[in-house]
Amino acid sequence: MKPLFVALIHHPVMDRNGEIITASVTNLDLHDIARSCRTYGVRRYFVVHPSPDEQALNQRIVSHWNTEYGKETHPTRTDALETIRLVNDFDEALKEMEGEAGERPKLVGTSARPNVGTGTTEENTRAHLENHSVCLVFGTGYGLAPIWKERLDAFLPPLLGPTEFNHLSVRSAVAIYLDRLMGVKSEKALPG
Amino acid sequence: MKPLFVALIHHPVMDRNGEIITASVTNLDLHDIARSCRTYGVRRYFVVHPSPDEQALNQRIVSHWNTEYGKETHPTRTDALETIRLVNDFDEALKEMEGEAGERPKLVGTSARPNVGTGTTEENTRAHLENHSVCLVFGTGYGLAPIWKERLDAFLPPLLGPTEFNHLSVRSAVAIYLDRLMGVKSEKALPG
Repeated sequence: MKPLFVALIHHPVMDRNGEIITASVTNLDLHDIARSCRTYGVRRYFVVHPSPDEQALNQRIVSHWNTEYGKETHPTRTDALETIRLVNDFDEALKEMEGEAGERPKLVGTSARPNVGTGTTEENTRAHLENHSVCLVFGTGYGLAPIWKERLDAFLPPLLGPTEFNHLSVRSAVAIYLDRLMGVKSEKALPG
Repeated sequence: MKPLFVALIHHPVMDRNGEIITASVTNLDLHDIARSCRTYGVRRYFVVHPSPDEQALNQRIVSHWNTEYGKETHPTRTDALETIRLVNDFDEALKEMEGEAGERPKLVGTSARPNVGTGTTEENTRAHLENHSVCLVFGTGYGLAPIWKERLDAFLPPLLGPTEFNHLSVRSAVAIYLDRLMGVKSEKALPG
């Protein structure tokens, strides 16, 4: 498998009225998504936010768990947070990904809305990963702004259950897409 | 399909040293898990915590989104939180589930540790749901205390990716198990 990346975008994203905004960083987006990325073998998790002040705060949170105290009391948290890269724009992330993967990764967006840009499937994305790197791109707030359609290569279908409701948190959405792409299912029941 | 329930247990659970504790309720466990439950058709999401004071606080959080203001500005949040039931012990949850389902649901535990109690699989659990109700049981902190082995009917295998790391947040774990059980996958790519 080639490197898989995750990018969490805070600008430009939408608010609940469809206006273009810059979303704040949610503390648990750092922790939960880093833990999911670490579990499912993601090479780097890029937290993309344009404000250097906001990123300085995030750096303090990440660094806290990298102290002697953090490492000793919560080693798995330290371990997970090491996948994080804090960057101010997506180009910076892309540059680091190109360095890691030796190629421009395929940029695959996600959305709770159907019919966003060119489509792909989890199956195709997994097949693509056999030979080429992929970056999954997630929007905070109410999702990626329409302009990302032009920037990204394809979009995965929305996550659906048996209901009409599809307002998952971005933390849950990342976890589910990673499990669909990289999850290993035990086909056998555990011994009793 | 018969009713599917989720129970989030705060006592007895383990801390990082394996000691039995009562965990605090995390605000985002209410929101994120309610949203996942609502998406995947869960009938009731029981937040089980023995402290009436803690539950009074949770009730205030849940009620806040049920005000006129909450309903108008974040209708999907209100909608999701309506699946929540705050109860002080698991028996109370079980009684309500029996009332809803007309039978005692099969109690299926989850754990990041292999070999916990009698095993089952996601496939078997999904098949069971065709004719009988199921309650998925999740532990906060560092997971369900060993005594739950005696209380629950079976355990699902731990969630695994292609790495040795399996320290997902409980929010992510609930989202993934629900998607594995109830997720509807689009096999076709979206139109471009």
